[in-house]
Amino acid sequence: MIDLQELRDCYLNTPSKIVLLVVDGLGGLAHPDTGLSELETARLPNLDAMAQESACGLTTPVLPGVAPGSGPGHLALFGYDPLKHIIGRGALEALGIDVELQPGDVAARGNFCTIDSQGLLTDRRAGRIPTELSAPICHRLDRIQLDGVQVDVFPVQDYRFVLRLRGEGLSEAVTETDPQQTGVPALPVRPLNGGAEHTAALVNQFVEQAAYLMSEEDRANMLLLRGFAQMPTLPPMGQVYRMNPAAIAAYPMYRGLATVAGMKVIPTGRQFADEVETMRRNFDAHDFFFIHYKPADAAGEDGDFNAKVRCLEELDPLIPAIRELQPDVFIVAGDHATPAITAGHSWHPVPFMLHSHLTRGEGIPAFNERACRQGSIGSIPATNVMLLGMSHAGKMAKYGP
Amino acid sequence: MIDLQELRDCYLNTPSKIVLLVVDGLGGLAHPDTGLSELETARLPNLDAMAQESACGLTTPVLPGVAPGSGPGHLALFGYDPLKHIIGRGALEALGIDVELQPGDVAARGNFCTIDSQGLLTDRRAGRIPTELSAPICHRLDRIQLDGVQVDVFPVQDYRFVLRLRGEGLSEAVTETDPQQTGVPALPVRPLNGGAEHTAALVNQFVEQAAYLMSEEDRANMLLLRGFAQMPTLPPMGQVYRMNPAAIAAYPMYRGLATVAGMKVIPTGRQFADEVETMRRNFDAHDFFFIHYKPADAAGEDGDFNAKVRCLEELDPLIPAIRELQPDVFIVAGDHATPAITAGHSWHPVPFMLHSHLTRGEGIPAFNERACRQGSIGSIPATNVMLLGMSHAGKMAKYGP
Repeated sequence: MIDLQELRDCYLNTPSKIVLLVVDGLGGLAHPDTGLSELETARLPNLDAMAQESACGLTTPVLPGVAPGSGPGHLALFGYDPLKHIIGRGALEALGIDVELQPGDVAARGNFCTIDSQGLLTDRRAGRIPTELSAPICHRLDRIQLDGVQVDVFPVQDYRFVLRLRGEGLSEAVTETDPQQTGVPALPVRPLNGGAEHTAALVNQFVEQAAYLMSEEDRANMLLLRGFAQMPTLPPMGQVYRMNPAAIAAYPMYRGLATVAGMKVIPTGRQFADEVETMRRNFDAHDFFFIHYKPADAAGEDGDFNAKVRCLEELDPLIPAIRELQPDVFIVAGDHATPAITAGHSWHPVPFMLHSHLTRGEGIPAFNERACRQGSIGSIPATNVMLLGMSHAGKMAKYGP
Repeated sequence: MIDLQELRDCYLNTPSKIVLLVVDGLGGLAHPDTGLSELETARLPNLDAMAQESACGLTTPVLPGVAPGSGPGHLALFGYDPLKHIIGRGALEALGIDVELQPGDVAARGNFCTIDSQGLLTDRRAGRIPTELSAPICHRLDRIQLDGVQVDVFPVQDYRFVLRLRGEGLSEAVTETDPQQTGVPALPVRPLNGGAEHTAALVNQFVEQAAYLMSEEDRANMLLLRGFAQMPTLPPMGQVYRMNPAAIAAYPMYRGLATVAGMKVIPTGRQFADEVETMRRNFDAHDFFFIHYKPADAAGEDGDFNAKVRCLEELDPLIPAIRELQPDVFIVAGDHATPAITAGHSWHPVPFMLHSHLTRGEGIPAFNERACRQGSIGSIPATNVMLLGMSHAGKMAKYGP
């Protein structure tokens, strides 16, 4: 784990290569009709063949019973204690749309909303107005000027946007303006400590100017701000593990998470095949690759069992292209389960396999929840995945004499 | 765990007896030709029969993916958090040759080396000179006198020795003199904090006098010092667990580790049969016995699969003699795996079984990695082994009302 100072002398810089494939929302639950999970239903000849030659197990992202967001799910796989390192909502939202956050910047997640003539909230999501209506409003708000602070407003989707403040002495320790109910006015921002008074005053000025600029709007005539957050400063993976890590991800949020962890992000295309090709072209330049597969999670979130099965089956044919690169260690893991029957992230242990020259198979016939449970790795915290990867790659010396 | 203050009221002093047999380097990996590990290959009728009547599982010495040295591997089995209690290399090297370390003593691991006429290192191991040549040099250096400090130099083997300093106000916080490369001079010792200036000055005086005394030598005309360490002060096992623990080990290092943990070391012979006989003769005098079997680890370190199999087969016939003593709890565990195919300590989970009047078997047919994985204990941190032993022996009260 990155947080264990005691292990820092164990990490070795070697030319051996590790590939960590994170299949977002990998784990699932049995379909009520068949008793088989998404992984058990899908036809996955390449993943199953790899399981037969791998050390298998299950990872627990945070703690049994705790369903993680994308932030903690990934940070844990990179070796960061997800209970210690928190990426706030505003910062994660900014990462998700490729908005750059420098140290000290404060980001907030914004919602457009509707208020009546008394200033009372009638719709906290402004009738879910589409992006083509909300984006022009964002551009209007983007021109707001505050003393000594750079203000930027970025459209996200529909009624959602990101507010970024850049300047000296800003703080994330301010309250949210969303009262979480209608029939009441938006709340003013209050400082949570002495150091945040300046930021609270600035944000209240922003809201006041914004409200004026939106007052003629039909639906989006006000805004709500939540999750004020600065980017946490994490010990960089490359420095702690003595590696040269790279990240390849089609979706901005995962590139952002990799950046927070200190990885070099390599630009890539929109499909997983593009990601694999990007890795192939850059394979000599790094000794660790985080490569991200998104579609399985999205299908799970939609509660679409068959779509999730299909997404897993679309991943499978690309596994040989990664194995052909002959990484010393090839790990397939998930940041969390997204069972279609729960239609959201869940707390269930996630299948995990590690392929290396030291793993010759242990009778695990397939890559799924039930089979991996019998594997030699057992059920481990996700924060130990990197330790296993580094050990199998010869990147870790013995701990203690 | 010894470190959990919360459990300290749970430990009960009872006449029941626990035997903890530590098979050094117990765990292994499959041979590429057969797919069977050393334990699966060996004929072990007595260990297998015991497994059929035991609660079985796997222990993780430190964390998944972390290969431990002998120090952390054993401390964990005794219940000490191996990430919290560190025994430095110099101290462990001293323990390994039966050199007594009192609180405050500083020990270092020494190498004889060769320098040229410019004082530049040409061989960091002095041509691996044999003990018969290095021992007389140790005796010569042993006569060095420093102000207010007792200096002792003990031969270890070949080019290796131990330096022990005894006196007031010594510190282990000094740098090493080994530059880890040839063509450069040995480094002077520097203090790592203000309290270590006196020690650094003394060590530099020692090196200067030693260099003078060795200057006529052909190969061993200089020395390098590494791993300065004082003995950590551990809460004594006997006191915390309210036991009267004894250690029986043919090899000095394990006697030393037992001493650090506060066990009484009972002198014994060189073979494991001697150890068992020593335990038999002293069985009435203690309620906990740590008994150590070394050969399996040595064979694994040599990368000799067949030799490791043989060492396990040589242990097996002595198991009945231990069972005949009818300990209330008999545990067979390992400090870490030493797979022959890795030829070194590894991070893999280690088979574990616990026999008591409360365990009547759970369908585990044999004592090996694969079978124990199915056991009722599951995969546990090695630091929990003592808790299980004490509970099964009736030495632990309920935690909390």
